[in-house]
Amino acid sequence: MKNIPQLLIFDVNETLLDMEPLQNAINDALGFTSAFDIWFSELLKFSLVESAIGEYHDFGEIALRTLTMTAQKYSVAIEKEDLQKILKITTMLKAFPEVKEMLYQLKNAGFVLVALTNGGQKTVEKQLKFAGIAAYFTSIYSVEQVRKFKPHPETYNFVLDRMQVEAKNAMLIAAHAWDILGAQHVGLQTGFISRPRKFLFPQQIKPTVLGNTLCDIAKALLNPVI
Amino acid sequence: MKNIPQLLIFDVNETLLDMEPLQNAINDALGFTSAFDIWFSELLKFSLVESAIGEYHDFGEIALRTLTMTAQKYSVAIEKEDLQKILKITTMLKAFPEVKEMLYQLKNAGFVLVALTNGGQKTVEKQLKFAGIAAYFTSIYSVEQVRKFKPHPETYNFVLDRMQVEAKNAMLIAAHAWDILGAQHVGLQTGFISRPRKFLFPQQIKPTVLGNTLCDIAKALLNPVI
Repeated sequence: MKNIPQLLIFDVNETLLDMEPLQNAINDALGFTSAFDIWFSELLKFSLVESAIGEYHDFGEIALRTLTMTAQKYSVAIEKEDLQKILKITTMLKAFPEVKEMLYQLKNAGFVLVALTNGGQKTVEKQLKFAGIAAYFTSIYSVEQVRKFKPHPETYNFVLDRMQVEAKNAMLIAAHAWDILGAQHVGLQTGFISRPRKFLFPQQIKPTVLGNTLCDIAKALLNPVI
Repeated sequence: MKNIPQLLIFDVNETLLDMEPLQNAINDALGFTSAFDIWFSELLKFSLVESAIGEYHDFGEIALRTLTMTAQKYSVAIEKEDLQKILKITTMLKAFPEVKEMLYQLKNAGFVLVALTNGGQKTVEKQLKFAGIAAYFTSIYSVEQVRKFKPHPETYNFVLDRMQVEAKNAMLIAAHAWDILGAQHVGLQTGFISRPRKFLFPQQIKPTVLGNTLCDIAKALLNPVI
């Protein structure tokens, strides 16, 4: 690390919260083990399609539409209400085991913690409250206020502007290669958590810090080698 | 149709060309039946990620990177050379059965036909030549010249500008909901071919013409009910 970031911007889904219960529910409902992976990829794809053409719908709405399409694609007959019921699991996810303790340690050490998600504002607030980690964040941001999805530069710059912090003094922490790419593009420091089955984009610039869990990222921030 | 379009802009992969041989090769190499679907979704997702952050790599390069990531995700050990070999199938795809005859009829009836693809310029020229349909197109366009991927408005507007045709007098024909969305956004007429396992985005504005094959689209253009 060239300089210790003062502001830590956390991605939420798959970075802090374990989506396994949602993954299992979608795989069960659609009847094959990679249904969740296909849906989650399509969800981000269509969010970026909307941003590309200047449209914006809530991430939850795009989640429902892409889940409907995925069910259609694999000829699974399932009611909209049932798909909505499955997607409600999103607001009842647990944090990964190490997250609470690491957020505590980082906050205690003087870092300012905020969240930034593609999800809607109300949804993310529910999620972090349910997971018992909302209190660690000075602010909880949704791209809803920018009406463009990550990794569009406007989303990260919006947080920097609100927090009055320069890009080089902030770090985006995420388990998604595309989120790290977007953060690198606006000059943020980056922390990549290689959660199970998560990989960087080949030939991507190396993130500032890399680790398997938030412990590794926190360790580098709390005991930096400069 | 309010007015008959003079210019027909064709998407290429999955719209004109049948990707089944590539699908089979990827599913075989990665060892499960939805590997192709995951990869193809990730390919478009990362192309849009690049456009979102102002980067551009050739679609073939992003195809290789996302295929590498997909293999990693499912713990499949496979050499880069073997992935490249598989992706070469892209340039050796056949047109869907009805395509040649329908392109002939449309051209013969006085429509101007062009192609527009996210693929690289050299790749698309090889593809259309191999499939024996290159000669039907007045021009073959790649987004390479715009350095942004479909459905960004610049890609369609580039073709309209080159062909000196107004949006309302042109039609984008594709088997992809997101491509139709982009075309609708710039005011083009649209023809959606619902190839197997292809669906519109729920609540999307209805395309100008809909059909299961290019026959249905061509029929509507050749015998319009105005």
